[in-house]
Amino acid sequence: VASSGRTTIAVDMLGGDSAPEAVVDAVGLLRGEAGLRLVLVGPADRLPGLLAGRGIDPEGLELLHAPVSVPMDGHPLDAVRRDAQRDEPELTVTAAARAVRDGRADAWVSVGHTGAAVAAAVLSAGRIPGIARPALAVVLPALKRPVVLLDAGASMEASSQVLAQFAVAGWCYARALGIDEPRVGLLSIGSEPGKGDDLRREAEQVLAEKLRAHRIEFAGPVEGDDVVAGLRAQVVVTDGFTGNVLLKGIEGAVAWAVERIARAYGDPDPARRVMREVATGEFAGGMLLGVNATTVVGHGAGSPAQIAACIRLAARAVQHGLIEQVRARFAVTGAST
Amino acid sequence: VASSGRTTIAVDMLGGDSAPEAVVDAVGLLRGEAGLRLVLVGPADRLPGLLAGRGIDPEGLELLHAPVSVPMDGHPLDAVRRDAQRDEPELTVTAAARAVRDGRADAWVSVGHTGAAVAAAVLSAGRIPGIARPALAVVLPALKRPVVLLDAGASMEASSQVLAQFAVAGWCYARALGIDEPRVGLLSIGSEPGKGDDLRREAEQVLAEKLRAHRIEFAGPVEGDDVVAGLRAQVVVTDGFTGNVLLKGIEGAVAWAVERIARAYGDPDPARRVMREVATGEFAGGMLLGVNATTVVGHGAGSPAQIAACIRLAARAVQHGLIEQVRARFAVTGAST
Repeated sequence: VASSGRTTIAVDMLGGDSAPEAVVDAVGLLRGEAGLRLVLVGPADRLPGLLAGRGIDPEGLELLHAPVSVPMDGHPLDAVRRDAQRDEPELTVTAAARAVRDGRADAWVSVGHTGAAVAAAVLSAGRIPGIARPALAVVLPALKRPVVLLDAGASMEASSQVLAQFAVAGWCYARALGIDEPRVGLLSIGSEPGKGDDLRREAEQVLAEKLRAHRIEFAGPVEGDDVVAGLRAQVVVTDGFTGNVLLKGIEGAVAWAVERIARAYGDPDPARRVMREVATGEFAGGMLLGVNATTVVGHGAGSPAQIAACIRLAARAVQHGLIEQVRARFAVTGAST
Repeated sequence: VASSGRTTIAVDMLGGDSAPEAVVDAVGLLRGEAGLRLVLVGPADRLPGLLAGRGIDPEGLELLHAPVSVPMDGHPLDAVRRDAQRDEPELTVTAAARAVRDGRADAWVSVGHTGAAVAAAVLSAGRIPGIARPALAVVLPALKRPVVLLDAGASMEASSQVLAQFAVAGWCYARALGIDEPRVGLLSIGSEPGKGDDLRREAEQVLAEKLRAHRIEFAGPVEGDDVVAGLRAQVVVTDGFTGNVLLKGIEGAVAWAVERIARAYGDPDPARRVMREVATGEFAGGMLLGVNATTVVGHGAGSPAQIAACIRLAARAVQHGLIEQVRARFAVTGAST
């Protein structure tokens, strides 16, 4: 959108546990990467000093003023809603999302409060028609092939229709990531049909029908361990509550295994190397699907390398035309909400 | 109940992927364990030959005839319901659960179909008054202290009242396992109050109130990774759908980590040793809470050592008077359903 032949990413400089320093360091890691242009969204009076303090050449970096980070205590979502009413936003998330809406950037990235980033994206860029709720899609480094899991926590309650919308959007994302012919599975508690709670039993029918209409292969119900195997499905769909619980559980279990196993070998380095490798690939960030702006939300505790990986992921989605593909899919089927 | 100074466990000899051989081998592993008496529930015409074939001395083993295993295809639950009507049950699960009801055994163990075992326990032994639905409680080898997670898949839908009942029953189980002063957490998607879906927001209030009445410490909402850390809570409560998805996800993630990390070290043995250790401890089986019979349900793919661990777990629960403690807790509070 914004620049000729280059992908422009607006970066929330005040999001995350170690902001702004960790984000500034991520910017440093990305200096000189061809085809990538960054818009740093933060307090204009502090950013030049922060860059200079880390020895980062400001040449070619655009600065966009927004003085305030999302308040982590109190009511972050209320703060975003209030900010969305302002002509001149104060919050970095609002300013970054608007930069995409207004064509100043192709995508935006935040490693701050997830709910606040989702709200900023919805309020500033709007939803894609035909997708009733946004979904956060994460990529897991499954044993066989990577797996896209969504929703990882953007929307708490989902109907079977919403799950079917997530399925189509998640399939588009998997394709944009280069996953060939992804099959879509519905997260449940058994691989036989008819298992699970009421929502899952209904969703099984709705997904089968909708995905057939889209000529997307439906793998049927899959289980929690299929998400880290990647054999039965490469896109796994669930509500944001279950998806978030599962994602955190997987992260915690891997951390558990690394600590316990490293102890058994008496040398933690190889185990930690595997984890570092995983954390700085395409697995670093969540892609927010269903909103009219390419939005990547990363781990608040992310290292500069992980934040840089989020920014690269956003650029990759732009280059693959992810938003356009999702919009086209939902335009074809019309008002399928 | 059944014997003086010894704990008697009825064992479903036809449950599990490698039944009856794996279960027979588990019986072999337990021969000579002081204080443990086994009732083998299976086809009377085949059991003696199976024991002889594995070189197991039948002395002191009681055989209880039931010729048929739960059909895995078709409708296993319907088969259990039909069998529950019979004077002479045909299914091993029904016969084993009745052995406990009738005082012939103190507890029973199956590594067959989970839903069928739950149905057999409910239909043969009945529910404990005050607990509206049964819950499967599993123990996870968390980094800090073991964590009891329930429900891992016995009941698909749960109200906030049911979650509060699970909380009290799970606390009794944690105490029976020797976990000192366990704190109870509600599985959610953030540790701040008021997060999660509608059920969780309501349950937060109900749990706070009920647990206060029981003088049980409530840790508030906890996340998926807290389940494998064990720092914030040692009992984690959720509905059976979410609990089963999380448990499978954790198992899958640990398997993923073992394979990836073992590859990084170039020697899989220490990693596999950790896994074996974990799988044959108290982590091998799920304890069914809320029914009037001590019931342990194990992994269908379990090794003989894991099945033996399930039988030891059942004996341990009997020796700690788990059922009596749960009954007493719910008798005190009266009809809290």
